[in-house]
Amino acid sequence: MSKKIEIFDTTLRDGEQVPGCKLNHKEKLKVALGLQSLGVDVIEAGFPISSPGDFKAIEMICKELREPVICALSRSVEKDIKVAAESLTYAKRPRIHTGIGTSEQHIKYKFQSTPEKIIERAIAATSCAKRFVEDVEFYAEDAGRTDNAYLARVIEAVVAAGATVVNIPDTTGYCLPDEYGQKIAYLKENVKGIHKVTISAHCHNDLGLATANSIAGVMHGVTQIECTLNGIGERAGNTSLEEVVMILKQKYRDHFYTDINTKLLNPLSRLVSESMSMPVQANKAIVGVNAFAHSSGIHQDGVIKSRENYEIIDPLEVGVDKSYIVLTARSGRAALAFRSKEIGYDLAKDELDIAYEHFISLADTKKEVDEHDLQKMLDAIFVSNIC
Amino acid sequence: MSKKIEIFDTTLRDGEQVPGCKLNHKEKLKVALGLQSLGVDVIEAGFPISSPGDFKAIEMICKELREPVICALSRSVEKDIKVAAESLTYAKRPRIHTGIGTSEQHIKYKFQSTPEKIIERAIAATSCAKRFVEDVEFYAEDAGRTDNAYLARVIEAVVAAGATVVNIPDTTGYCLPDEYGQKIAYLKENVKGIHKVTISAHCHNDLGLATANSIAGVMHGVTQIECTLNGIGERAGNTSLEEVVMILKQKYRDHFYTDINTKLLNPLSRLVSESMSMPVQANKAIVGVNAFAHSSGIHQDGVIKSRENYEIIDPLEVGVDKSYIVLTARSGRAALAFRSKEIGYDLAKDELDIAYEHFISLADTKKEVDEHDLQKMLDAIFVSNIC
Repeated sequence: MSKKIEIFDTTLRDGEQVPGCKLNHKEKLKVALGLQSLGVDVIEAGFPISSPGDFKAIEMICKELREPVICALSRSVEKDIKVAAESLTYAKRPRIHTGIGTSEQHIKYKFQSTPEKIIERAIAATSCAKRFVEDVEFYAEDAGRTDNAYLARVIEAVVAAGATVVNIPDTTGYCLPDEYGQKIAYLKENVKGIHKVTISAHCHNDLGLATANSIAGVMHGVTQIECTLNGIGERAGNTSLEEVVMILKQKYRDHFYTDINTKLLNPLSRLVSESMSMPVQANKAIVGVNAFAHSSGIHQDGVIKSRENYEIIDPLEVGVDKSYIVLTARSGRAALAFRSKEIGYDLAKDELDIAYEHFISLADTKKEVDEHDLQKMLDAIFVSNIC
Repeated sequence: MSKKIEIFDTTLRDGEQVPGCKLNHKEKLKVALGLQSLGVDVIEAGFPISSPGDFKAIEMICKELREPVICALSRSVEKDIKVAAESLTYAKRPRIHTGIGTSEQHIKYKFQSTPEKIIERAIAATSCAKRFVEDVEFYAEDAGRTDNAYLARVIEAVVAAGATVVNIPDTTGYCLPDEYGQKIAYLKENVKGIHKVTISAHCHNDLGLATANSIAGVMHGVTQIECTLNGIGERAGNTSLEEVVMILKQKYRDHFYTDINTKLLNPLSRLVSESMSMPVQANKAIVGVNAFAHSSGIHQDGVIKSRENYEIIDPLEVGVDKSYIVLTARSGRAALAFRSKEIGYDLAKDELDIAYEHFISLADTKKEVDEHDLQKMLDAIFVSNIC
């Protein structure tokens, strides 16, 4: 039987906190409505203590959205938690996300504290949040660099204190997939009560491994993935929503599913990119403008013969109209014939040979030969010959 | 003993063939010289049969560069191979890279051929290339989707025909790390003569797993990684050079090393991005402008106390001057105090409280509070008070 993996979107929190990404409350609401249509299970709407503007945005989202769980972030600080609870007053399904750093590095150099005191603060924060809402998620910040035996003690303590979700963040993007997977496996084996709660993966991409780590987590018992559209987030960003969703769909369809309407991935990616003024690089998996573009002669010839020669995802499935055959100096005859036919020139073999020679001379002088260039070139060769 | 992993850079071939990335021969030479300084072992300089412009660029690179191996791509077609050999005439250390599709999909729908005929063509291409150069790399295109038993037969045949390097490309970005690792392990166990040749990983990022797959390959016997700066390349791109190099350096330093001068990673990333007009997204690992920027209050406070709280790579090590503390509406008191001090305001606690209130009102209206905004705000509060 296929198991549901919940998608916890933090585009509006871990994404929005990034340099340049801040949205006003109307823009935040628009993205939140988009995320609801996309089918995410949880929206982390913000960090309410951080500013009155963010508080207001979360409140508006709670009033307008009725489907996903709405989650607000807090530190393990009473005032943070109270403000988070207040921001969620109008939520149909509220969740408070609270937590504290658990790595030796964080305990010593961020909190100047001790492992035992950190456990006390973790319990106190969870209990405090529990006074306001039933659904409390606890994050063990920098779990990626936290000793597994100590991490298991922290998690066991917060589960006993009423946490419904335990988030195991690789905050600094430190782990390899095997390390992260083994960490989850260790917790599954060693934490009393772990079977009653949801285990969540929250990975960062500092070494380019956030997606692989999240999937390794799922292989070992994670059932919620925290992610953002376009992988935005602190530093090198968070796990890309579009990547984990499509991996589960393409590679694990018999074992796992999500409720994401994948046809909205590209439209939503654009909404986030445009409203946050954060361009997505052309070669970004699934949502980059080149993700379904083909330009070398070898690839173009292959795609024209059968799309599956060079594409493992049907572009329609992720909201892209079609694959693109781009004409550059690396394109071959098959691509030239294909694109020429699209604009009304069905070239015979000898005509194609002539056209290709002209094409390569032209293409060597340009980044790309566009439809206008092509039309002009073909008209010059063939229309002038007829005249 | 630590093992060398060779870095085969294909920025100028798989990268340059991408829509919009085409360079003229002078620009190509400039990037190639940069790659030589970076310390890559092999530069795939282009696909010489594709256009006279590309042929000329490869020839120039061969004349100017004396350190790395210079490699030229070809299909398993005699004319391609001859032109590739010709383009390498002036290379000190030439390599021809030839190959053919080996997946059922490619054999049936790209070549309308049979597995046996494909093996014949693979042998013929390798033998043909061997007539021109000693160093011949064979690619089994779409190896990611190729049946392992058949792939082993192809690889054994080309090794016997004289291939010095065997490239196992996950052309369509289809594999999961375990699948790719197991494929390499299978070849190591089942191909006669495999110990005499270099096994190369060439992964694509369609599911966001190119980096994880390449590293999984290294764990099972790969000793050459094919990659590009900024991960550019067909569709969602290739394995990012900067990511695999830094993973090997940060996580496997006792087992593997590369000859890359990592301090040049950011300068070279910018050179490629600017000369190809291909912007790198802000949240790109290691080379994105935000890769070492911190903006949420929690993170900023942590980084100011100790950089290692939120950074696993020293920015200096990859050619970035320093970490950035960016002021936004998600910033806290610690960041405000830190940035204020940088411009000459060493605020006492009560002054900081006043300044923070003004700051949050300002920050809620803006994407980012820059140095100029900060100076103006602090002057208005404190200088006017004094006056």
